[in-house]
Amino acid sequence: MTSNPIFLYKSDPVRGRLWAEVFNRQAPHIDFRIWPDIGDAERVRYLAAWVPPPDLAHQFPNLELLFSSGAGVDQFDFSVLPPALPVVRMVEPGIVQGMVEYVTHAVLDLHRDMPRYRRQQREQCWQPLQVRTAAERRVGVLGLGSLGTAVLQQLRSLGFDCAGWSRTPHEIEGVPCHAGPEGLPAFLARTEILICLLPLTEATQGLLNAALFAQLPQGASLVQVGRGPQLVEADLLAALASGQLAEACLDVTDPEPLPAGHPLYTHPRVRLTPHISWAAGEVQAATADKFIAQLTRYLQGEPLADLVDAQRGY
Amino acid sequence: MTSNPIFLYKSDPVRGRLWAEVFNRQAPHIDFRIWPDIGDAERVRYLAAWVPPPDLAHQFPNLELLFSSGAGVDQFDFSVLPPALPVVRMVEPGIVQGMVEYVTHAVLDLHRDMPRYRRQQREQCWQPLQVRTAAERRVGVLGLGSLGTAVLQQLRSLGFDCAGWSRTPHEIEGVPCHAGPEGLPAFLARTEILICLLPLTEATQGLLNAALFAQLPQGASLVQVGRGPQLVEADLLAALASGQLAEACLDVTDPEPLPAGHPLYTHPRVRLTPHISWAAGEVQAATADKFIAQLTRYLQGEPLADLVDAQRGY
Repeated sequence: MTSNPIFLYKSDPVRGRLWAEVFNRQAPHIDFRIWPDIGDAERVRYLAAWVPPPDLAHQFPNLELLFSSGAGVDQFDFSVLPPALPVVRMVEPGIVQGMVEYVTHAVLDLHRDMPRYRRQQREQCWQPLQVRTAAERRVGVLGLGSLGTAVLQQLRSLGFDCAGWSRTPHEIEGVPCHAGPEGLPAFLARTEILICLLPLTEATQGLLNAALFAQLPQGASLVQVGRGPQLVEADLLAALASGQLAEACLDVTDPEPLPAGHPLYTHPRVRLTPHISWAAGEVQAATADKFIAQLTRYLQGEPLADLVDAQRGY
Repeated sequence: MTSNPIFLYKSDPVRGRLWAEVFNRQAPHIDFRIWPDIGDAERVRYLAAWVPPPDLAHQFPNLELLFSSGAGVDQFDFSVLPPALPVVRMVEPGIVQGMVEYVTHAVLDLHRDMPRYRRQQREQCWQPLQVRTAAERRVGVLGLGSLGTAVLQQLRSLGFDCAGWSRTPHEIEGVPCHAGPEGLPAFLARTEILICLLPLTEATQGLLNAALFAQLPQGASLVQVGRGPQLVEADLLAALASGQLAEACLDVTDPEPLPAGHPLYTHPRVRLTPHISWAAGEVQAATADKFIAQLTRYLQGEPLADLVDAQRGY
């Protein structure tokens, strides 16, 4: 056992123990260890971390692969990572399923006027509101990675009029896809329910601002499931006050957790959840399966899936 | 024109004018009239009504068909309708779509703990809650007509562990279906989110009572989209107070509209909507299409779809 490679796990320890069972069963040749039980540092070949240790290259000289244990990688400081170290994102079915559930709920909540019905209930008012069909409701997704694509497929199956936008051109069956800065105005002009699923990069920081909101139809709504720093909070509050935006559903904020007393908690047209959109229960075992499959591909010299581009940052 | 049969429409006049356009275009041989403009009563062969006039047989001696202009027919008093008069329910895609949207939203709302997150937001508390996968969430539908079947298909596509119950045996692909009084206990024992889509009959009046709630797992939730008198309100409040039920989402009540000051408006674990689950926007034109298709079948001597059984009451 002493010469076996170490897979070091540095994230939620409850999940770590579930992973350990799967590794022991499916990959007994790998010495699976949970931080801070690092074992022989020279044998650490694989690291799965939410936040990697700062002195990565020195502490683990033989590290071959870094896995992100979350959906995003914006918590990684690529400037201090060894440039040749491959970074692999966790894009696993559980997270996709969790996000599809969350966004489907948020879109139906807005489509069927549930925020207003909840306010009417508080006012003890029984008043049906005018309804539109899903086919008449224009929903748009910013970000067409595996999450955005899965969300659009589910929304299409419910009959919504969908479109997508991403930095580089994508194709999704049955969904008009816009791309690049030049494609953004047309995408925004037709989008009544805007879903942000973009990664956090320099280009997306502060993207959800007054200039963007002004390009949406008046009375549009926002579902923010990207990252907190993408949203300019003052611009959101102004757009809600002017009626340019009708409702906002925010699963991410800046900072997180949002401190008690923060005005977003009490805004009547803001619905807040504590960064739970991605969560999908006991998916951890399935994640471990996927990491073992990636390791197997790596050891057989096959290309890795879900590699991160350190230049782009996602 | 004077000898043409009259189709008399007695329901929402806005919808009536939409229907008139469709009839004039597609069935110009039929004299479409909107109540109270009944024309020559002897020429009235077809009546579409939410509540038919009380003296139906005398007022329209040549009436051949009665259509319900709503999804249910419990507003009809079958004891005063001519026994041989066929009664046809409106089961149209728009209503099915509206109900699928509403129930999908309600199930995701409960599955993802949104009622608790809304309470946490009011308490200015940022606290992620434990999550389960859809595959671990046992959802059950009471009533397996066209609405229940469509709802189950959508919930299955989201990965929920689904089951159904109905008075008589049904088969739905991939969904275990229970039937009859003897099938009810096993169905209830496994159901954490119970959806009631039953018609209102003598047998279903008061069905959602303490005895039924006691057979659900502790902490189950209710989505009531059937009819108000099926629910024993005092038993619901007691089940919520004891924790036997965690949450209730009610789209139908008794009476409707629910008067201001009614305790259901202010219960922290009751979400109320004003009988809007079935609504799906401008589906009225599609409904008229369907009625014309039914009339065409009738005139050609073919069997009618969606005939109501006056004995069963649905």
